Amino acid sequence: MAKDKKPRRPRAETPRGFRDYFGADVTERKAMLDTIAEVYHRYGFDPLETSAVETLEALGKYLPDVDRPHAGVFAWTEEEDGDWVALRYDLTAPLARVAAQYRNDLPTPYRRYAMGPVWRNEKPGPGRFRQFYQCDADTVGAASVAADAEICAMLADALEAVGIPRGDYIVRVNNRKVLNGVMEVAGVLDPNDPSKFEHERGIVLRAIDKLDRLGETGVRALLGEGREDESGDFTEGAKLTKAQADVVMGFMAARRATKAETCARLSELVGGSAMGAEGVAELETISDLLAAQGYGPDRIVLDPSVVRGLGYYTGPVYEAELTFEITDEKGRPRQFGSVAGGGRYDDLVQRFTGQKVPATGVSIGVDRLLAALREKGRAGGTVQGPVIVTVMDRDRMADYQAMVGELRAAGIRAEVYLGNPKNFGNQLKYADKRQSPVAIIQGSDEAARGVVQIKDLVLGAKIAQSASLEEWKSQPAQFEAARTDLVAEVRRLLAQGGE
Amino acid sequence: MAKDKKPRRPRAETPRGFRDYFGADVTERKAMLDTIAEVYHRYGFDPLETSAVETLEALGKYLPDVDRPHAGVFAWTEEEDGDWVALRYDLTAPLARVAAQYRNDLPTPYRRYAMGPVWRNEKPGPGRFRQFYQCDADTVGAASVAADAEICAMLADALEAVGIPRGDYIVRVNNRKVLNGVMEVAGVLDPNDPSKFEHERGIVLRAIDKLDRLGETGVRALLGEGREDESGDFTEGAKLTKAQADVVMGFMAARRATKAETCARLSELVGGSAMGAEGVAELETISDLLAAQGYGPDRIVLDPSVVRGLGYYTGPVYEAELTFEITDEKGRPRQFGSVAGGGRYDDLVQRFTGQKVPATGVSIGVDRLLAALREKGRAGGTVQGPVIVTVMDRDRMADYQAMVGELRAAGIRAEVYLGNPKNFGNQLKYADKRQSPVAIIQGSDEAARGVVQIKDLVLGAKIAQSASLEEWKSQPAQFEAARTDLVAEVRRLLAQGGE
Repeated sequence: MAKDKKPRRPRAETPRGFRDYFGADVTERKAMLDTIAEVYHRYGFDPLETSAVETLEALGKYLPDVDRPHAGVFAWTEEEDGDWVALRYDLTAPLARVAAQYRNDLPTPYRRYAMGPVWRNEKPGPGRFRQFYQCDADTVGAASVAADAEICAMLADALEAVGIPRGDYIVRVNNRKVLNGVMEVAGVLDPNDPSKFEHERGIVLRAIDKLDRLGETGVRALLGEGREDESGDFTEGAKLTKAQADVVMGFMAARRATKAETCARLSELVGGSAMGAEGVAELETISDLLAAQGYGPDRIVLDPSVVRGLGYYTGPVYEAELTFEITDEKGRPRQFGSVAGGGRYDDLVQRFTGQKVPATGVSIGVDRLLAALREKGRAGGTVQGPVIVTVMDRDRMADYQAMVGELRAAGIRAEVYLGNPKNFGNQLKYADKRQSPVAIIQGSDEAARGVVQIKDLVLGAKIAQSASLEEWKSQPAQFEAARTDLVAEVRRLLAQGGE
Repeated sequence: MAKDKKPRRPRAETPRGFRDYFGADVTERKAMLDTIAEVYHRYGFDPLETSAVETLEALGKYLPDVDRPHAGVFAWTEEEDGDWVALRYDLTAPLARVAAQYRNDLPTPYRRYAMGPVWRNEKPGPGRFRQFYQCDADTVGAASVAADAEICAMLADALEAVGIPRGDYIVRVNNRKVLNGVMEVAGVLDPNDPSKFEHERGIVLRAIDKLDRLGETGVRALLGEGREDESGDFTEGAKLTKAQADVVMGFMAARRATKAETCARLSELVGGSAMGAEGVAELETISDLLAAQGYGPDRIVLDPSVVRGLGYYTGPVYEAELTFEITDEKGRPRQFGSVAGGGRYDDLVQRFTGQKVPATGVSIGVDRLLAALREKGRAGGTVQGPVIVTVMDRDRMADYQAMVGELRAAGIRAEVYLGNPKNFGNQLKYADKRQSPVAIIQGSDEAARGVVQIKDLVLGAKIAQSASLEEWKSQPAQFEAARTDLVAEVRRLLAQGGE
């Protein structure tokens, strides 16, 4: 009994795979999302915010990790009725549910954007978290590939708006129908019995999607008998013959110098497949529409090696890749890689309603894009710290609060030191930690004379680092000012700091 | 076997108690949160975003509904280790965890704001959802009541910033120490054995918090033997004697015309209780600090009837109430009521570290405040719909997309109709549903002549409602313009609409 008396303290830790975001991490992401939302808005997209929790049946089995259906979500049963609910793992599944639930009220087509956290019950790793942000735009109810073209153009605009210059990104477009045509030619798709070879096609799809990571040899292995990775784990292959694999590999390498040549090559590859020919025609239309708006191959290109891993895509697929090099953890240069992707998924709403509803959309990987902006020096600054009014005399708190009140009324970020004021050094350490540009000091002597001491902490830090004694004397980092000039003097100092 | 062949379709529904937010609902909330964040920022508060998921032990038993500890959260066990995790039910518990986890890295005091959804596993009802937004600001590590005063001032500023005019709200301040002093006098608190009568004091606290709802008779019943509600449910009372209950009731009615009179009355009530006297002194200090900054009784008042239901408060408590009347669902006028509340909780971080860490903070009920703004006509507008370029000729999609491209480049929200263009009436119905201000029409005839038809949908709607034939002729809602003047003409029309 006695041992139960004193319960152990709870651990102050996030659950495994979750993390906290402080200060600039929060504001920079917000600024980026605001900018993207502005672009989406200008394209006519309306915001939608669904709840974090969905019924498990509404989420369906469309997780990116198709090998572990349902295992990849955080799910629990409702107390009252025992129904399973789960945290959403993306923003597309909730959109499909909304499009079905409100189909009589929403405009057709329905253009919507959504941004917010999603949750994946996956093994966490370095830089891999179980909660992360997505930022999606989708058009539901538009069968025309003009809708796909629009999303590609909007994606390019969004990337430029947040600060990725033209030339540093490329949007690559492909079409699943072309791939299906190739599968038909390779003999792993029978147009009269689409369910036949479904398993093999899934393997082919995921193999192609891993070209970047595994190289041609790795993909070949997955198209054939299978592949053993470095850890000794064996992944089953699609068991294609060499001739079949050649057709698939030829498809991935079908990109040519111009759009016309690429389309001609693809037409050859899909041979007599009606679906394949339809896919090539759609690619041409998308490319023409984009070119007419000025989105040329410097921004958007046709690239048959893009397939996207998700099973549910039915037509055009697209991916935005950042093309500049970064240095990885091991000091090696590498391409930054993909920051956004999407495509057409004409069957997701049908799950609910039984009626086909065409849909297409893109998802931006917010955290990766933010990391890219930091690489480019477009983000990663620190938040401007507040002006700190120090407390020299505990009984004159009202005076100090009046000072910050005046500063705030002038739009200046300011606060009184609210820790224990006894040790003045601690107050200046606090100001340093907060990256305060300015500290205000007023002891009883200054109060009696109607003045304040103003300490330029930015200049002070510079002087402390490098200045000679002469410079130090000629540019004093602290000066006295009339109490009535407080706001004007602080404003002047802050304006200097901004130069 | 056969019956398993065709699985039933999933229902397109949110789980019970959850909802979706569309269009203006999303943007108005965001605008309000942005404005509040700006005020918090100016006061020196830094943003913090914790994950939605916490360990159950970190969340603790501090749910507002103390009668059902742990029952009020959505919780599940981790696959790997069987540990319990749960969705956060507020933003204070995660802050306490963060303050403990990063205690060596955070500045002291740590001022942080946080905004985001929280989840409660409670019975949903009309207007009562299981996911809702909170917007909090807290100061951790400041023992001085100057920190409480600052939060009260900031709360008043935030309410005015979002559009609640002075006079339409009041921030009411009280102190738990005063209440404890009163409890001491009433004989339900023994300073030498604080755990004695803890159960009774909990009942008293919750009874006082229900004064608005239950009236004096209801509260008296809860202070005594207990109370049977309309449904026949019986709530156990604190079993105070009439004399004891008189002391408590006297406390709630202690507010006087001025701060000085209220404090004098409270001093009488707490008699010889040291803690009670300390509480009265703190109230006086807070009031003085606020008055010195110009926050007089038109904005912030001392009010002994405010106690806040939460058990964890240890000092000052505060609440913002909107004072204007609204009409309820049944057509009766009533006060809008509370939109924010908070107080000092000096023991929450101690749960983790064993060391006392003073903390105080406020939580704004975002959805209620937004509802209030809609009542005041400060929100609830509709989002400006996009200019719709209609599709007269499916093969000229590139031309139409070029038009929206030009409009967007000029900062004008615009889109091509991407539904089936066959029925032109549907295109105009769509424009109507989107609340489009302008529609653009260009058939092959217009294209050949280098012109477009511009349809003023705002004027068109007005004319359709009320205009005479003469007015209709003199103010045509549709006119022809040169294709090259498209952007200029649309901009002109939109500027008119804005007048």
